Amino acid sequence: MSEAALAAVDWGTSSFRLWLLDAKGAVVAERRGPDGMLVAGTEGFSAILERYLADAGAPADLRVIVCGMAGARQGWVEAPYVSVPAGVDAILAGAVAAPAAGRDVRILPGLAQRQADAPDVMRGEETQLAGILPLFSQGNHLICMPGTHSKWVEAEDGVIESFRTWLTGELFSLMSTHSILRHSLDGAPGAAAHDDPVFANACGRALEDGGDVGSGLFRIRAATLLQDLQPADAAATLSGLLIGAEIASARRVFQASSQQVVLVASGALGLLYATALKLAGCTVIQADAEEAVRTGLFEAAKRLGWVERAA
Amino acid sequence: MSEAALAAVDWGTSSFRLWLLDAKGAVVAERRGPDGMLVAGTEGFSAILERYLADAGAPADLRVIVCGMAGARQGWVEAPYVSVPAGVDAILAGAVAAPAAGRDVRILPGLAQRQADAPDVMRGEETQLAGILPLFSQGNHLICMPGTHSKWVEAEDGVIESFRTWLTGELFSLMSTHSILRHSLDGAPGAAAHDDPVFANACGRALEDGGDVGSGLFRIRAATLLQDLQPADAAATLSGLLIGAEIASARRVFQASSQQVVLVASGALGLLYATALKLAGCTVIQADAEEAVRTGLFEAAKRLGWVERAA
Repeated sequence: MSEAALAAVDWGTSSFRLWLLDAKGAVVAERRGPDGMLVAGTEGFSAILERYLADAGAPADLRVIVCGMAGARQGWVEAPYVSVPAGVDAILAGAVAAPAAGRDVRILPGLAQRQADAPDVMRGEETQLAGILPLFSQGNHLICMPGTHSKWVEAEDGVIESFRTWLTGELFSLMSTHSILRHSLDGAPGAAAHDDPVFANACGRALEDGGDVGSGLFRIRAATLLQDLQPADAAATLSGLLIGAEIASARRVFQASSQQVVLVASGALGLLYATALKLAGCTVIQADAEEAVRTGLFEAAKRLGWVERAA
Repeated sequence: MSEAALAAVDWGTSSFRLWLLDAKGAVVAERRGPDGMLVAGTEGFSAILERYLADAGAPADLRVIVCGMAGARQGWVEAPYVSVPAGVDAILAGAVAAPAAGRDVRILPGLAQRQADAPDVMRGEETQLAGILPLFSQGNHLICMPGTHSKWVEAEDGVIESFRTWLTGELFSLMSTHSILRHSLDGAPGAAAHDDPVFANACGRALEDGGDVGSGLFRIRAATLLQDLQPADAAATLSGLLIGAEIASARRVFQASSQQVVLVASGALGLLYATALKLAGCTVIQADAEEAVRTGLFEAAKRLGWVERAA
């Protein structure tokens, strides 16, 4: 096993992921847990980081590059937003040193879109963008980054021009746990399978409805009452409705000239979005979200001179 | 003060309203409280009803006509849905006697739309419709009944042809208390004022976006972070966005040939919807929701022969 050259951390609101990377960016060790920003406010950012580093066997002087909510105003130290339009280098150049970390820890900034009529922000996804944009350095690309807060990004010749957020994952969670629909979804075995025809059907209908999610939500409750819709199918319907509406809405907002969408996602969510995007008539280029963020973090380390640029 | 001829009750999920009406339908006494179906499951429907009746000074043999969730399967006694298309008389004829009530209590049915691709249900609003539809017995009318679950209804020559539900009120509540937007709305002094330009602006934008609510929600959070949006303005923006999206969505779904909308609402919510509908270019005919439900309940009592039909 090669030696760790640095640690790379993706520190979200409710999750923490750490990789030890060697001088070529290969993964030497990996740790993940629920210690996101919400927890870190209590235990302390440095304490959590040191706990994970020790668990992964990192030496005391190993340098750490971080992205995500640790750089928010209410995080460890604020890494001020970089405004779009912005290239990858502007993101990588914005790293801020964490105070009293006991080692060299740098936190990457988020992105802000400051247009008066379309304000938006991201923290974490910009580092995924830094990881993949070198592959899309020419022409216009629409990038879909699904999640609790899905981000859609328009990039032109490798520059992030604009972006927008859809609360799709959060809406799914809220609707299934707090709304009238919880009675319909109660007992559902988690997310839909990407090849579930119930998902495809709901998604296709939402795409036809052009992003209008409101007219379809209560139908799920009514179908439970009148048509004996089962919880798993209710969950697949809600998932298809929300994802289909997001895609229709995003394509309207960005008025994409091409049918191509770069999907940056992992696991089951990636499969669902790939299915939905194909239903929408899109050509999908898929990049793994975890690999993208690791690559972005490693690029930042290179820029800091922590590893050879030639690596 | 005239003598009470019957009691009329609108029994919702989380609210209870009782009126004593005289033989002409005029209000003799009124009581309201939070003892909706959710509470009644514990205390018992009959016990709650008797408590309110006693408080209002109703005699022991006064008859009671009820609409709303008391007639749901999980309510007092199920008053099976009447399927649309349905006229007012089919609703009024569907009253079911409540068991072991100790007095004559009848509960009106809800409406069900059983189309495979557009299932929907209502309980309570059908009685408002019974109250107002005699005024719209000719021609095609689109009726908007805003609330936690807003109902839009298409009526043709006095017959309820179809309807659909939007979760607008519930979404506002969920977003403002459980979502990421709660940080933006925290401290807002309740609902928007109908003449607030922030409401009108958000509403107008949602109308332009054609019912696409998803692309606008996170903008509220971002405006707090980047533009110092204040909680009251965040609440007015969310309200305008959700109501505007509902109206755009409903008009798309019903493809209304006329610009006229019959708005059945009361109080501040009625003012907000009237403003929003006018922004959408609609001609608004406004009916008071409470008066509508009382009229519907009184019509049911007339049909039961409890009061003179000539009244």
